Amino acid sequence: MTDFTPTERSRVKRLHKRAHYDHDTVHRLIDEIGTGSVGYVIDGHPHVTPTLVWREGDKVYWHGSSASRMLRQVKTGIPVSLNVFHLDGLVLARSGFHSSVNYRSATLFGTAEVVEGSDEQEASLKAFLERFVPGHWDTLRPVNSQEIKATTIVAMTIEEASAKIRTGHCEDDEEDYELDIWAGIIPVHTVIGEPEDDPRLKAGVARPDHLKTIKFG
Amino acid sequence: MTDFTPTERSRVKRLHKRAHYDHDTVHRLIDEIGTGSVGYVIDGHPHVTPTLVWREGDKVYWHGSSASRMLRQVKTGIPVSLNVFHLDGLVLARSGFHSSVNYRSATLFGTAEVVEGSDEQEASLKAFLERFVPGHWDTLRPVNSQEIKATTIVAMTIEEASAKIRTGHCEDDEEDYELDIWAGIIPVHTVIGEPEDDPRLKAGVARPDHLKTIKFG
Repeated sequence: MTDFTPTERSRVKRLHKRAHYDHDTVHRLIDEIGTGSVGYVIDGHPHVTPTLVWREGDKVYWHGSSASRMLRQVKTGIPVSLNVFHLDGLVLARSGFHSSVNYRSATLFGTAEVVEGSDEQEASLKAFLERFVPGHWDTLRPVNSQEIKATTIVAMTIEEASAKIRTGHCEDDEEDYELDIWAGIIPVHTVIGEPEDDPRLKAGVARPDHLKTIKFG
Repeated sequence: MTDFTPTERSRVKRLHKRAHYDHDTVHRLIDEIGTGSVGYVIDGHPHVTPTLVWREGDKVYWHGSSASRMLRQVKTGIPVSLNVFHLDGLVLARSGFHSSVNYRSATLFGTAEVVEGSDEQEASLKAFLERFVPGHWDTLRPVNSQEIKATTIVAMTIEEASAKIRTGHCEDDEEDYELDIWAGIIPVHTVIGEPEDDPRLKAGVARPDHLKTIKFG
């Protein structure tokens, strides 16, 4: 199990017992959570764009939106911080101070670049859809060259990364455990709902079974 | 209904029919979603920190973590971009290209500052807990002065903001509606689970009714 080497920018400073730097943990969180926030700098000012995110090896990918405008101008790539985060619960203690949250979070640093080449773009589009709806790509009308041209996928090799995970109940002051105050966890889940058919679905088209395998959060 | 005035940094460039600049929409999204990503710049590099976020009037608040280290050094405040985002569904079209996602998102710009003064800090801590667990604060062991001192709350007046919302089904190419391909929406929900009692809960302490009123996402 190899580790990302933390530097000043990626080392977790607070509550470092929650910190992880190993590739396996960082990769697992990216794969599980599926959504992310891309941070970048324009004219010295911070910008944050939400996105869906997926991974292949030590590279993360997302569908380009705001960032892609910049990237098309800066062909050499731009420095990016990408955070994936899932809130897993409210941890209610017997005091406000010791109340906390359970969560999984990974922060990645690297240089974002637009995926170039129509074969690479098509492969990325397929990987994107297959991550979120496994088995779906091959059931669709094939993508055409204009569509590939109109799509921007951004890739980033993870140069540095750190993960933070909190689980379990609160840690109250010892004397507070004697108080008549409720404490516990309020779990928070991302739930994939029942599919809703398109109102213009062609008669006789059945809902595919693979929709049941969708999972993230 | 007043609007935030979009400038070059906050104007929504892609798919502007999804854009909103009115205070009511921006405020509603902050209030509904409850989680956010704070973007800031250190030594020219972007950083993104996930957090819980709440609002009072045109000010947003979050519990300080990484950002607070910077803020304690830069008493005048630092420029911040805060995004709140909720993925509401996968929108599956008859082609990969027209597949999309339903979501609610608001991006806020302003200057982050640490809340100073023990009364103000205590009021903010209370507002924080009351936003996520309404009615809970008064059931807790009261906060003490050391705890207030050890807590950092960050506040930001919203200077600029834009919201983006997508709802509804896909917009396929007209000829694709004739294909034998399933299309529809896979809804994604944030669900508050059944509370779990702390294993060291004092005998006879009941779960408070107000836990049922928790809502965000």
